Amino acid sequence: MRAVEQDLKQIKRGSEELLLETELVEKLASGRPLRIKAGFDPTAPDLHLGHTVLINKLRHFQDLGHHVMFLIGDFTGMIGDPTGKNVTRPPLSREQILENARTYQEQVFKILDPEATEVCFNSSWFEPLGASGMIRLAALHTVARMLERDDFAKRYRNGQPIAIHEMLYPLCQGYDSVAMKADVELGGTDQKFNLLVGRELQKHYGQAPQCILTMPLLEGLDGVNKMSKSLGNYVGINEPPGEMFGKLMSVSDQLMWRYFELLSFRTTELIDRFKQDVAGGRNPRDIKVLLAQEIVERFHGGAAAVQALADFDARFREGAIPDDIAEVSLSGAGLCLGLAQVLKQSGLTASTSEALRMIDQGAVRIDSVRVDDRHLVLPAKGSFVLQVGKRKFARVRIA
Amino acid sequence: MRAVEQDLKQIKRGSEELLLETELVEKLASGRPLRIKAGFDPTAPDLHLGHTVLINKLRHFQDLGHHVMFLIGDFTGMIGDPTGKNVTRPPLSREQILENARTYQEQVFKILDPEATEVCFNSSWFEPLGASGMIRLAALHTVARMLERDDFAKRYRNGQPIAIHEMLYPLCQGYDSVAMKADVELGGTDQKFNLLVGRELQKHYGQAPQCILTMPLLEGLDGVNKMSKSLGNYVGINEPPGEMFGKLMSVSDQLMWRYFELLSFRTTELIDRFKQDVAGGRNPRDIKVLLAQEIVERFHGGAAAVQALADFDARFREGAIPDDIAEVSLSGAGLCLGLAQVLKQSGLTASTSEALRMIDQGAVRIDSVRVDDRHLVLPAKGSFVLQVGKRKFARVRIA
Repeated sequence: MRAVEQDLKQIKRGSEELLLETELVEKLASGRPLRIKAGFDPTAPDLHLGHTVLINKLRHFQDLGHHVMFLIGDFTGMIGDPTGKNVTRPPLSREQILENARTYQEQVFKILDPEATEVCFNSSWFEPLGASGMIRLAALHTVARMLERDDFAKRYRNGQPIAIHEMLYPLCQGYDSVAMKADVELGGTDQKFNLLVGRELQKHYGQAPQCILTMPLLEGLDGVNKMSKSLGNYVGINEPPGEMFGKLMSVSDQLMWRYFELLSFRTTELIDRFKQDVAGGRNPRDIKVLLAQEIVERFHGGAAAVQALADFDARFREGAIPDDIAEVSLSGAGLCLGLAQVLKQSGLTASTSEALRMIDQGAVRIDSVRVDDRHLVLPAKGSFVLQVGKRKFARVRIA
Repeated sequence: MRAVEQDLKQIKRGSEELLLETELVEKLASGRPLRIKAGFDPTAPDLHLGHTVLINKLRHFQDLGHHVMFLIGDFTGMIGDPTGKNVTRPPLSREQILENARTYQEQVFKILDPEATEVCFNSSWFEPLGASGMIRLAALHTVARMLERDDFAKRYRNGQPIAIHEMLYPLCQGYDSVAMKADVELGGTDQKFNLLVGRELQKHYGQAPQCILTMPLLEGLDGVNKMSKSLGNYVGINEPPGEMFGKLMSVSDQLMWRYFELLSFRTTELIDRFKQDVAGGRNPRDIKVLLAQEIVERFHGGAAAVQALADFDARFREGAIPDDIAEVSLSGAGLCLGLAQVLKQSGLTASTSEALRMIDQGAVRIDSVRVDDRHLVLPAKGSFVLQVGKRKFARVRIA
């Protein structure tokens, strides 16, 4: 029972919600390898660290000896959004899907053990199901209960259309769990409703209901918004080692601990020791280096991680950002500020025209990265180190 | 254009609603044979005259040279009611469906010309459609619009569950119209919503929308409730000629005209002449005989019709009901009255115990049909001739 408790602690690490814990304890106590399900959309195969939070959790399960099933939702991917309203979800051909699936696997197998991972495609059970099977499936849920889902409820209240097929998707996701005989399903917090539908359908089909484990959305480099490509606050897992390293070194000390929790495979005990060290006066930068190295090593190997650190140190010595630099707090009043304006307000240049000149000369850096766009607009909220030439620094906080 | 107007008049005869008339006029004017669709559930193949109202209308189209498609809904029949809540709609096997379809055809081909009728099974397009096709179909309608359907709206308001597959059935029915390229679809008035979905889907698939023609529900022999087996006020199309004839002769004069409109193939002009005759003093009974003969001939042939009339006349002469008999009005006060009680109240017996004795002796007839059930309960509303022995008659009206 001691082992079950330890396993449970590792499984819950960084998670948002586990339902039902008592059921999971029972399943873990059985000693058999559990069937762990996570589903992925085959439309956006370009992963960033935010996506890896869930994959890391799968890896935790794998490390504990469980059977991981990586589900590619090719069936719904081939349908796309049939209303044609959602341009980000066009129907994909089988070739595109398979190509995307390959790209996906290449990326996730940097985290998961390929030998211990079963890759599933849900077309393999939905195609035989047929139109009549889909109707039977639709009979297992009522319209009223479906309208309880937060986003549906809101849209229905506001008179925004909900196409009927949208009510079929949660049922399809639930049926995946039946077909896969999942013991546990992982998903984002926004997936909770769909994961619960899986529990229900499994009960209907005479299976023990899956436990559901939701994972939080990872904050981006700004520490505020969720990591996303469109916000530019992400670290892509295919980014070059140097950039990956530099971006990770730029996060705040607070965000560093969050990243340790959700992205590192170091034990909780070791991370706790790091925290004690920092509390005892150790430079957080030393710990951040460990995080950055671990992540770079994961995606580019050990040699690349060593090289990235060396390069970073060299750059640091050259254009080093001193430890004790002026802190400047600016209020964006909810608006985005222009870079030149911020340079002037933080006292690094005497005027905006000098600021523009400095930008044009390539003398301006944000978090050590040179900026040459004189029209650059900074986020309405965030923190970064601004630098003009070799000597002038300011840590700017916009709130 | 004269011909189109005449055809239109014949098509509209007895119908409840035609949408859109202008479209139908255009289609008729094209001169091509129109594709006329009517769908039937393969679960209840035992037809009564109520069911034939729609089939008669198909026959009208056939007489006008159009292409009639008799659709057997075997696809949904094989699914049944997947919630298992509706015991009257269990899933049927393919064998049962085919057997029912055969029984169906045997019956309807007493009205329709088999040579000019295409029998369709919707499994032939729904099976190839697959689960993904069903999802695409579901994308073509919104939940809110589906909830506008009267019965859905009511159930949703009252918090009664609506299973999601119930929203798929109208779409399936609509897709039938697409697959069949229907120009016109016939249905009961309760089908209007579903028929309109067909129009919409056809537009989506680039077809001209079908016209829809709804037919009223036929009143049963009581002239009040709709004809139905469970209410016992029906004429089954497989009933023996004598019974069929007798039942039709028992209807009120008013109901006779309704039956002429919906069940007879006599022209409107001829029926109008009959009405003038009766208005001029002719006994309605003579006209009712014509109706009864026509219907018996349709289902049992000319010889049987002649024989049925002869038998009826003989019986009439024997136990003839005089033309001028006492009329008795009773108030059921909304309750059903026992036969013995009614015999006493109408003065045909001195007491209920005498009434019961007469029933036991086989001396009591209702509309010339012997009754030997002493516990018989009469409908709360209706009109019939009650007879005790050879001489005592009363026309009883219960209101």
